[in-house]
Amino acid sequence: MRLQSLKQQFAGVIPPLVTPLADEYNLDFPGLGKLIGHVLKGGVHGLFILGTTGEGPSLSLKLKYKMIEESTRIVSGRVPVLVGITDASFAESISLSKHAADCGADAVVLAPPYYFPSGQAELLEYLEHITPRLHLPLLLYNMPAMTKVDIGVETLLRASEIDGIVGFKDSSCNMIRFHEYILAMKGNPAFSLLIGPEELLAESVLFGGHGGIPGGANIFPELYVDMYNAAKEGDISAILKLQEKIFILRKLYSCGQYASSLIKGIKCALNCLDICSDFMAEPFHSFGEEQRKEIIKVLIELELKTPIV
Amino acid sequence: MRLQSLKQQFAGVIPPLVTPLADEYNLDFPGLGKLIGHVLKGGVHGLFILGTTGEGPSLSLKLKYKMIEESTRIVSGRVPVLVGITDASFAESISLSKHAADCGADAVVLAPPYYFPSGQAELLEYLEHITPRLHLPLLLYNMPAMTKVDIGVETLLRASEIDGIVGFKDSSCNMIRFHEYILAMKGNPAFSLLIGPEELLAESVLFGGHGGIPGGANIFPELYVDMYNAAKEGDISAILKLQEKIFILRKLYSCGQYASSLIKGIKCALNCLDICSDFMAEPFHSFGEEQRKEIIKVLIELELKTPIV
Amino acid sequence: MRLQSLKQQFAGVIPPLVTPLADEYNLDFPGLGKLIGHVLKGGVHGLFILGTTGEGPSLSLKLKYKMIEESTRIVSGRVPVLVGITDASFAESISLSKHAADCGADAVVLAPPYYFPSGQAELLEYLEHITPRLHLPLLLYNMPAMTKVDIGVETLLRASEIDGIVGFKDSSCNMIRFHEYILAMKGNPAFSLLIGPEELLAESVLFGGHGGIPGGANIFPELYVDMYNAAKEGDISAILKLQEKIFILRKLYSCGQYASSLIKGIKCALNCLDICSDFMAEPFHSFGEEQRKEIIKVLIELELKTPIV
Amino acid sequence: MRLQSLKQQFAGVIPPLVTPLADEYNLDFPGLGKLIGHVLKGGVHGLFILGTTGEGPSLSLKLKYKMIEESTRIVSGRVPVLVGITDASFAESISLSKHAADCGADAVVLAPPYYFPSGQAELLEYLEHITPRLHLPLLLYNMPAMTKVDIGVETLLRASEIDGIVGFKDSSCNMIRFHEYILAMKGNPAFSLLIGPEELLAESVLFGGHGGIPGGANIFPELYVDMYNAAKEGDISAILKLQEKIFILRKLYSCGQYASSLIKGIKCALNCLDICSDFMAEPFHSFGEEQRKEIIKVLIELELKTPIV
Repeated sequence: MRLQSLKQQFAGVIPPLVTPLADEYNLDFPGLGKLIGHVLKGGVHGLFILGTTGEGPSLSLKLKYKMIEESTRIVSGRVPVLVGITDASFAESISLSKHAADCGADAVVLAPPYYFPSGQAELLEYLEHITPRLHLPLLLYNMPAMTKVDIGVETLLRASEIDGIVGFKDSSCNMIRFHEYILAMKGNPAFSLLIGPEELLAESVLFGGHGGIPGGANIFPELYVDMYNAAKEGDISAILKLQEKIFILRKLYSCGQYASSLIKGIKCALNCLDICSDFMAEPFHSFGEEQRKEIIKVLIELELKTPIV
Repeated sequence: MRLQSLKQQFAGVIPPLVTPLADEYNLDFPGLGKLIGHVLKGGVHGLFILGTTGEGPSLSLKLKYKMIEESTRIVSGRVPVLVGITDASFAESISLSKHAADCGADAVVLAPPYYFPSGQAELLEYLEHITPRLHLPLLLYNMPAMTKVDIGVETLLRASEIDGIVGFKDSSCNMIRFHEYILAMKGNPAFSLLIGPEELLAESVLFGGHGGIPGGANIFPELYVDMYNAAKEGDISAILKLQEKIFILRKLYSCGQYASSLIKGIKCALNCLDICSDFMAEPFHSFGEEQRKEIIKVLIELELKTPIV
Repeated sequence: MRLQSLKQQFAGVIPPLVTPLADEYNLDFPGLGKLIGHVLKGGVHGLFILGTTGEGPSLSLKLKYKMIEESTRIVSGRVPVLVGITDASFAESISLSKHAADCGADAVVLAPPYYFPSGQAELLEYLEHITPRLHLPLLLYNMPAMTKVDIGVETLLRASEIDGIVGFKDSSCNMIRFHEYILAMKGNPAFSLLIGPEELLAESVLFGGHGGIPGGANIFPELYVDMYNAAKEGDISAILKLQEKIFILRKLYSCGQYASSLIKGIKCALNCLDICSDFMAEPFHSFGEEQRKEIIKVLIELELKTPIV
Repeated sequence: MRLQSLKQQFAGVIPPLVTPLADEYNLDFPGLGKLIGHVLKGGVHGLFILGTTGEGPSLSLKLKYKMIEESTRIVSGRVPVLVGITDASFAESISLSKHAADCGADAVVLAPPYYFPSGQAELLEYLEHITPRLHLPLLLYNMPAMTKVDIGVETLLRASEIDGIVGFKDSSCNMIRFHEYILAMKGNPAFSLLIGPEELLAESVLFGGHGGIPGGANIFPELYVDMYNAAKEGDISAILKLQEKIFILRKLYSCGQYASSLIKGIKCALNCLDICSDFMAEPFHSFGEEQRKEIIKVLIELELKTPIV
């Protein structure tokens, strides 16, 4: 386990990488290489693989292992790699953490087991049991829309005292509680507080958060890196301009009719930008022509794509 | 794929078997044998392993494989064995179905992938993709509290037209909609309609359902078999007596403070009856002494245990 | 306060009467007369005015007063009249109960105040405060979809011990809990247990409930009276036939796209049957031509209307 | 109807005034005078009476009328007075607006009717019907936790085009959507965007909102006025200090166990500060001694009360 210093290890913009797929059983290798190159060129501070945006839970164990191997190999230490190990099964989460450590990843990210919702006390017990058996520092991940468990302030505080838990990613979209997390963790500045939703990146950093995991950074990493820097510097007028752009990019996520539109939108946009395949793991399926046209319009509005004359 | 006849293949009382565990990585073999003997002696019409009550999603793949092997071996064709193959990953569900078929199981049971909730149309597409690749007849499983997807009447109707889908288990606790399912499926009497919650077993059978998957049948199989028979015969006065007993047994599920109390209660009761271990897979943990005392009281009230004088 | 006997005062089919409106400020007097005649001819055992189906909360106090006066005058003691007095304000509920008593109504029906949701203990305190100040026997009304408060079994049990509370109407659609209510109230057979949703009328009576408040009885009172009788006699084959018809009538409620479709459907059907106006209180508006055609189709299917050749 | 200018009429800190009650039927007149004096001295930019914090929906019509008369009389034009007219009944909302206009109030505030939840299209129709019949400019009020209706961005945009609707108060706690509201209304700078939850006041103003309706401003108006000014000036370091204080004050709201703790906490604190009575309208009841002690501790921590030595 690495030593914690006063400065949190995980800060800045850490995109939740999509998993480029050639088909149901195989990675899109060239796509993965291009995607990692693309986001690193954009100045991001780390990568988070096999998260929600990475369709982690939808992939077979074999594919997850492969994704860990390839991503760590390609990144090759240039930025920290965080690996999602959330699983309904305790044993599988531990195995994934072992593989992540063996491949040279830097941390693991764990949301509560997502079939059975647990109470706060049960969740703490679970964390006390699993953390000592993991092979890397752990960031706890709050994703109530998927896990049906919403991590309370008191639970975070007590979890942060478990040796090995070094940070927290909050994707609850509850900004009032994010302020509570910040205030509760004030005495532990080495502990990383990261926000999921990119729409809240600016304010979370302004108020003391350490960065974010914005899905849109797969497509337009500079935008979120600029926003992170503007927020760190408290440059409100820059923030307001960037915020408008972030809300334009967000239109990519509303081209379909289901909750899955966010991931589909990102994969479709990356495909339109010739970065990687838009193949989706079941139960989802990539966008059709109609949505693709909408996606291209938004990319043009963002000046990420040139209109065809 | 077996031929469907006018009579549905899966009917009656099919307990969702708990998974007796010696520890985190191993089955409680003697316990499993005793448990299967216990429920078969009680006259049940089939077994459902690796469901919600079986803690299926919490088990490692290895343990699931072992549970399939052992259960089918012990049952040895005396009643049909249904195997839960619900998984967040498409590929893992298919592998489980292959193993179930290889071991001689009779059907698989599948709820929607439970990390990402899908829309009704997405779910149908998923079912159209996965069903032809499964190795056994499929019962669809509605469990919205865990999967965040509630299977609509129209979706069931269309799913029932997919070749290979032969039945449906509904654990939504929505009795109004169960009536709708019954009426919608009237033209397809070979299709099995089974209810999850044991409190609704009687009325679902009275109105045309084909049976149930009552968790309490792990403990007291005769009670549910009697209720099934009373309901089939429309014997209201017998039903009312049995219903009272079912609601006494149900107190076993309210000894703890979390949603997990149901499974904990069943495992604790089975342990108090010297049938099998009460070890729980993470994120849950077995009851302490206090709850154990409450469990014993209920078992005495049910005359399943003799009070110690 | 009337004396309670072993037989509950309020049993059988008690339609939640719609409020026929001429316009925003006035009752449709002839319509109200025809409607009451229609349901009484159908053999109902009481009337419930100013409930959810009666758009009670949407009406001005003046209109509510008028509706109480006219309904009690027209019914003139032929069946009991129950008056909804649910209001966000304590004082207004008491005034309504006074007026109901003055007009000769038989009971009042009260759901929890519906702006601020209260906890179970708060709700009990509220009931302890309001019940002694009401001027008629009280039926408690559980309608969590509107009030955001779901009345627990323990709360009902304790409420039933408050002098003046003589019955309970449950519109939660939670059939498992309705069984719990029945079992909890077994020792108090004079206390009326009535079910709201008409789809559950049969089973609730089969298992010991005393009747229901079916919205559809505005349109087709005989259907629900027949069902009540069949259920009381345990005549399963009659029940199954009637249940199918109830589910055909229910199609009247699905002609629009909002939660309000139920009341709109009933009012539109009554208008198509030349019984009363279909004017709706804000925020709702009566159906347009398209939905009207669907409504007529269902009425023809129910043989309540003759197809025009 | 007043003319709109480029500058929104309603901006800054507008406390949602509690309603000081002597008992169930009467205002605490001296308390109301002291309370209004207290908040005006604190520099607030307006008053909002009969809102959620004002227990508006729990009061009888008579009390509401009295509260409007007294508040406008005491304020006497020093700041704008906004009057909550939300009611389940269309007619009562209109009457309240008439009385508010007669008493010289400046605007009315209206949430969707709160018994029947309406769809977005239904809600717009309702707004089109009611707005022309109101006697004062209207601020729309989003309070989904109470009304079960969540006002969408598109609905707000279309509502803002209805003549007479001049502003919006959002108490949904959904900060992502508040950014969407801000961006959607960019072309209409005269339209007031106000935030309900005080924890989000700073960021909502930083990003372009016009002010807030903080419940805590009943107790400590200067704190919120300072925060509003700091946010307007983009003074991040001042914001961070004030935010900590706001989160200390917020502890006043967590002294009880129900949703109602917020209003109880405010009234109890005001009583501890000798400003007004803490009598609560049903279904709520004022805090007991135990909670009172906790309240006093927080007031001491905020230096609003001197510890007794």
